[in-house]
Amino acid sequence: MHCDTLWYHANLITVDGPGLGVIENGVIAATDGRIVHVGAAGSADHLQPAQRIDCAGRWISPGLIDCHTHLVYAGNRAGEFEQRLQGVSYADIARAGGGIVSTVRATRAASEADLLAASLPRLDAMLAEGITTLEIKSGYGLTLADETKQLTVARELGRQRAVEIVPTFLGAHAIPPGRQAQEYIDEVCNVMIPAVAAAGLAEAVDVFCENIAFSAAQAEQVFLAAQRHGLAIKIHAEQLSNQHGAALAARHGALSADHIEHLDADGIAAMRSAGTVAVLLPGAFYFTRDTTLPPIADLRAAGVPLALATDSNPGTSPLTSPLLAMNMAATLFRMTVAECIAGFTREAARALGRQDRIGRLAVGLDCDLALWDIEAPADLVYRMGFNPLHGRVMRGQPV
Amino acid sequence: MHCDTLWYHANLITVDGPGLGVIENGVIAATDGRIVHVGAAGSADHLQPAQRIDCAGRWISPGLIDCHTHLVYAGNRAGEFEQRLQGVSYADIARAGGGIVSTVRATRAASEADLLAASLPRLDAMLAEGITTLEIKSGYGLTLADETKQLTVARELGRQRAVEIVPTFLGAHAIPPGRQAQEYIDEVCNVMIPAVAAAGLAEAVDVFCENIAFSAAQAEQVFLAAQRHGLAIKIHAEQLSNQHGAALAARHGALSADHIEHLDADGIAAMRSAGTVAVLLPGAFYFTRDTTLPPIADLRAAGVPLALATDSNPGTSPLTSPLLAMNMAATLFRMTVAECIAGFTREAARALGRQDRIGRLAVGLDCDLALWDIEAPADLVYRMGFNPLHGRVMRGQPV
Ligand SMILES: [Zn+2]
Ligand SMILES: [Zn+2]
Repeated sequence: MHCDTLWYHANLITVDGPGLGVIENGVIAATDGRIVHVGAAGSADHLQPAQRIDCAGRWISPGLIDCHTHLVYAGNRAGEFEQRLQGVSYADIARAGGGIVSTVRATRAASEADLLAASLPRLDAMLAEGITTLEIKSGYGLTLADETKQLTVARELGRQRAVEIVPTFLGAHAIPPGRQAQEYIDEVCNVMIPAVAAAGLAEAVDVFCENIAFSAAQAEQVFLAAQRHGLAIKIHAEQLSNQHGAALAARHGALSADHIEHLDADGIAAMRSAGTVAVLLPGAFYFTRDTTLPPIADLRAAGVPLALATDSNPGTSPLTSPLLAMNMAATLFRMTVAECIAGFTREAARALGRQDRIGRLAVGLDCDLALWDIEAPADLVYRMGFNPLHGRVMRGQPV
Repeated sequence: MHCDTLWYHANLITVDGPGLGVIENGVIAATDGRIVHVGAAGSADHLQPAQRIDCAGRWISPGLIDCHTHLVYAGNRAGEFEQRLQGVSYADIARAGGGIVSTVRATRAASEADLLAASLPRLDAMLAEGITTLEIKSGYGLTLADETKQLTVARELGRQRAVEIVPTFLGAHAIPPGRQAQEYIDEVCNVMIPAVAAAGLAEAVDVFCENIAFSAAQAEQVFLAAQRHGLAIKIHAEQLSNQHGAALAARHGALSADHIEHLDADGIAAMRSAGTVAVLLPGAFYFTRDTTLPPIADLRAAGVPLALATDSNPGTSPLTSPLLAMNMAATLFRMTVAECIAGFTREAARALGRQDRIGRLAVGLDCDLALWDIEAPADLVYRMGFNPLHGRVMRGQPV
């Protein structure tokens, strides 16, 4: 039987089946961008590949998936970070126009070309570590025109690089300067979501449900508007306090509830019932010096799927390394090596509603791969600030 | 006046003078590998450079200096990391032959070629982030032959790459399996130090002074032997408990006391009096989930020089990113941006006894540079898992 490409003499991290589903000395084959065979050496003798690639004992995992980023923005918050280390308070920084407001101001002022130029180096850092699918949220425009601009740039990133971009509308990220929360949420629901959906600019809607942002009732209003327009939903929930947002989102069928440091037992039960993915963001936990750990053991015991992401953003997680996010999940959250790798592959795919298409090495799935110069899967999690990527494959093509 | 090379349209982080000594829109010139001019635009009109390099607004810092690493070793402790996350205790891992003993076993079994091949990717990761000088300790051989092998490989690394390697003999790193501490220290002092000094394989001697390693009295014995053979001294001190090793080392004129989480006021006073550098190792603090912070505020108040390093090693800091070490120093230790950058340049040079030769952009010093695609110095510290290095210059030559 013909196939396009066969990778052989490879160790496979299939992330399919119990644990990591490792196949030592395995083979994987693709045709027309899809995986057509996965197995042990010798299992592909019936295939006649047009191209054979000797992996020389390297490891192959599914291409990594970052399911929660705010990658597209303008401005630079490094100066604010520097001031904080010199003892300046958040309140004083905010009074001087700093904080998220400064990112909104810079993003609004930026052209599409500016935003693209600012975002490409961040995307390239992610791709250099094996990312093949990356979610990007809007949320620094906070007007229809500026949110549209962010989402347009997110889409353009996917055209300029070999990566699948998943755009999410996060108009309900912050209360815009000079606005009231409720009237802004009404605009988000009645004007912005319909327009974004009509333009096909996002496939999901996210909301920041927190005492410093939007209430659970406002989050629910956003969910209903999203669903009226055929968009999936997700939530930033329980990061700073327990607003019961994750349970609410789960009851509405959310793909994921993200952060969830302050999640309680009811929230866990609701997420389990709904199959809502827990997206854990150790980079933000580390960078903000949070001390409230997400309830990992309880989530694990309940069987809630655990995804990981970088949360790449200028204010609370200026992180562009999925491997470092894995190390932080292990070191700070005590997640296992298998959980860390599944969190950036299989479970991240689930958080994006793509579990039947990406995130595992299995027949029928897209052939998005990461090839690694490592001795064992644990190497991906254990090291800090080291990139063992050998190469990426996107839809069957080395890129 | 002739000069070899002039870099212009650059922003300079001189690390010379108060704070970072920034010169925006500056120029720097080199002849015969040394810096011959540093100043503002227009200040070099009297120079006739053979080569002019337009830096297009990039930033230039001194090449980074990692003054504390254990970069040369064999074996892989990722599996041990994985087991720990699955709940296996250190005691059980040690009983199964894990821990430092496994690194010693693998390092002893490795040939020089094996060790070199294992170490080069780690070194390359460091160089990719702007390192131009790197200290490497022995300490995984624990026999004269195997310590000599490690130091020989360290020297060879400096021949294979454009980097200055500073070798340190750390025979007193751990009690070798099957040996008694005192009889081993006697061998270190009476056999190994004389041999290493005679072969010119190290310029300093280090000792791990801790309740699980060597006592303060044994450390003093090592210092005296080192000094009899013309070698500088330094110490791993006060990492897990207060053994008063830093004060002891300072009284003997040590270049640096490293780790020092449990350092007390007497230790600070002794270090200040002697000019001993405090080498802080945030990667090990993070990776071992330490909760005892080094007494940064007191060290700062006393005017003790603060250097930073990766402590790159397989057991407690598998870190090969100086930039990430800076971020950890800021995030976890609340060191300022200026302290973080000085910690990997000016103060690191001091910890290696090279403060008159490297670590600043100043006339007469070696022209070792790092060129950065950043908007401000704070970018080097603020970001996580992003490498903005544009290029390195070693002794005046772009490399
Ligand atoms: Zn977020
Ligand atoms: Zn050390």
